[in-house]
Amino acid sequence: MEPGSRGAVPGGVSVSAVLPAGGSGERLGGVTPKQFCSVQGRPLVSYAVRAMERISWISDIIVVVSPENIETMKTIIEKYGHKRVTVVEGGITRHRSIFNGLKVFAENEFSSHLVQKPEVVIIHDAVRPFVEEDIVSKVVMAAKEHGAAGAIRPLVSTVIASAADGCLDHSLERARYRASEMPQAFLFDIIYEAYQQCTDYDLDYGTECLHLALKYCKAKAKLVEGTADLWKVTYKRDLYAAESIIKDNLSQQVCVITSGKETLAQVGFLLPESLKSQIKVEAISIPLSKNDSRLQSIISGQCYNFVCVNDKRCAIQEAQELVDMLEKSNIALLCPVVLILVHLDISENNSFSIGMEDLTTIKKFARETEKKNILVYGLLIHYKGEFWLLMVKIIRITIEIQV
Amino acid sequence: MEPGSRGAVPGGVSVSAVLPAGGSGERLGGVTPKQFCSVQGRPLVSYAVRAMERISWISDIIVVVSPENIETMKTIIEKYGHKRVTVVEGGITRHRSIFNGLKVFAENEFSSHLVQKPEVVIIHDAVRPFVEEDIVSKVVMAAKEHGAAGAIRPLVSTVIASAADGCLDHSLERARYRASEMPQAFLFDIIYEAYQQCTDYDLDYGTECLHLALKYCKAKAKLVEGTADLWKVTYKRDLYAAESIIKDNLSQQVCVITSGKETLAQVGFLLPESLKSQIKVEAISIPLSKNDSRLQSIISGQCYNFVCVNDKRCAIQEAQELVDMLEKSNIALLCPVVLILVHLDISENNSFSIGMEDLTTIKKFARETEKKNILVYGLLIHYKGEFWLLMVKIIRITIEIQV
Repeated sequence: MEPGSRGAVPGGVSVSAVLPAGGSGERLGGVTPKQFCSVQGRPLVSYAVRAMERISWISDIIVVVSPENIETMKTIIEKYGHKRVTVVEGGITRHRSIFNGLKVFAENEFSSHLVQKPEVVIIHDAVRPFVEEDIVSKVVMAAKEHGAAGAIRPLVSTVIASAADGCLDHSLERARYRASEMPQAFLFDIIYEAYQQCTDYDLDYGTECLHLALKYCKAKAKLVEGTADLWKVTYKRDLYAAESIIKDNLSQQVCVITSGKETLAQVGFLLPESLKSQIKVEAISIPLSKNDSRLQSIISGQCYNFVCVNDKRCAIQEAQELVDMLEKSNIALLCPVVLILVHLDISENNSFSIGMEDLTTIKKFARETEKKNILVYGLLIHYKGEFWLLMVKIIRITIEIQV
Repeated sequence: MEPGSRGAVPGGVSVSAVLPAGGSGERLGGVTPKQFCSVQGRPLVSYAVRAMERISWISDIIVVVSPENIETMKTIIEKYGHKRVTVVEGGITRHRSIFNGLKVFAENEFSSHLVQKPEVVIIHDAVRPFVEEDIVSKVVMAAKEHGAAGAIRPLVSTVIASAADGCLDHSLERARYRASEMPQAFLFDIIYEAYQQCTDYDLDYGTECLHLALKYCKAKAKLVEGTADLWKVTYKRDLYAAESIIKDNLSQQVCVITSGKETLAQVGFLLPESLKSQIKVEAISIPLSKNDSRLQSIISGQCYNFVCVNDKRCAIQEAQELVDMLEKSNIALLCPVVLILVHLDISENNSFSIGMEDLTTIKKFARETEKKNILVYGLLIHYKGEFWLLMVKIIRITIEIQV
């Protein structure tokens, strides 16, 4: 896609993002920098990129990595189908890396990257995988108004100052202070100006972008209270926590696929409506085809549950197409995939229209896919409206099998 | 056991501990206060109590809980066989709860509890399950010298002060500040004096014990750099992390049991020595018996791997005793238990002395115990010294099966 062509944004601002991902992960105690550690078979940085990518009004995402990881990062982008991402070589410190990322927007020498200077730039960490659109939007709007803004959280522990002898000097009153978290956002011209003015000492020993904006551009950042999921993966225990949260989320997402027919389209609308109070639902109405990019992107977004609604007597052919896509995407190798084939009977008579032969075909198909870690279930619904609640319940139970 | 009778301590100080466990767990977003949340089938508070209990020089452990949880706490103590623990009713804030805990040592009205006033008192949180003896000992020694001491950790996020308008006022230089963690320790007379003098405002809105010791007793706490595992379970993600860490630890512990015979005792010494560079080993030399309190305490400490070394041809009887104990303790219901029966052949000839009949018996026994989630493996070792490395390797591999 063309750079900068993404649609209107909160308040019509143009917005892009810089993700510093150059850290060495010393505190994690491992050799792999934490942003490249695998969580449920996917590197942490890919989750953070995806979180940004899902926000349609973010034009470009600059990921800044250390020179030795540029190829790794490019492979990740290709493997997980990330779009709108540019990989940039970082500096030796966090501030130098962010500065490098910002330069891509500002300097002509990077014109080959085809990115446009945004009005507001988001700075977010590659090791904070769970950021939601809501907080990003709030921070961007606050930056547009105040020049700078950042998410904050209450302090978990009391903060204390130590004296030179290693003894307590004083403790801070917890209520007056906050932990500065990410995302942060800035009017691009302000943060870029601040980076241009700052000293080598700032670039080498500082970490806080809000501080630079205040010191060099007198921009008093607006602080935005964030949610608990903004936390940063710092220690090994945080990787464990991230893994459990991602596992939890996986079973909380379902994609409902219906073909374009009118009766089915209605179902394709009603079913997600009924499910969405309980789980996260993506609904698409398409004939199953290997080339559908929305379905591809849902699959690469690690949705592990699918409901295919059809009115054919036995839609094995379509199911096979989906199984092929899932297999190709590799997610079925990582985690069980639940695929529920719903046969919708809209005939007026009350007798079920599926026979022993069809059942045998479905069972055989299910046995084959099970080897690929794809669990197929068949549901026959005689559609008369009142079956809805039951159907929702059955689908919910079936998805829970996966966990 | 008699109160205060536990042996000498770092520097011959008498030490006891207070664990405030009265919190409501609001930040966790659940109804169960986090200290009572189950992690691998055991409430979090039980891990913290166990961590203190394992330190032999801590005389008494006072757990302070809110009135409605006193019975729950007593049930936990009974179920997990905790010793040296006294349950005390807490106040409405953290400081009031700690004060209540300290009063038990100081006031005659609590004389029914039979605890003696210690020279140094440790204060530790019920929601910090992973504290090790090393850091507790350092903090206690520092408290003995300075009157007060506490564990600290580097700050994970930059700390900022907000102005009245919700904008950034200033950010703190990260290197000058630390997060105040637990355990903390105090000369009893200092912290008790501080609590007696402090105002209602302190008791209702303060949280930091080090601050009280400084403010009311001019005791400048010594700050002791702690390890990453001191963190406090605050959010749901921390419960996930705790669970994963505990699971990891489970497979890293093994108990080697040998009967008292001389040859076997030698093995009971050599095997743990060889294993201990790789996993945590508890070695006991006893005839298996239901009444052995050390074995009971190892089992209730959630050790899930056992190696029984014997020189009998087929020690099913002894193995059965252990299986009975494991079954009764319920751990086998929670998690697979690995039980390796090592038959040690110390005869001079090279032919293996176990026959088909014995093998059949062991296999049958293993099939039975498997139903109880206890996986039994038999190993025949012809003991000639050089088999050691192989044996260690086999045991290591066998234990890994469990994970």
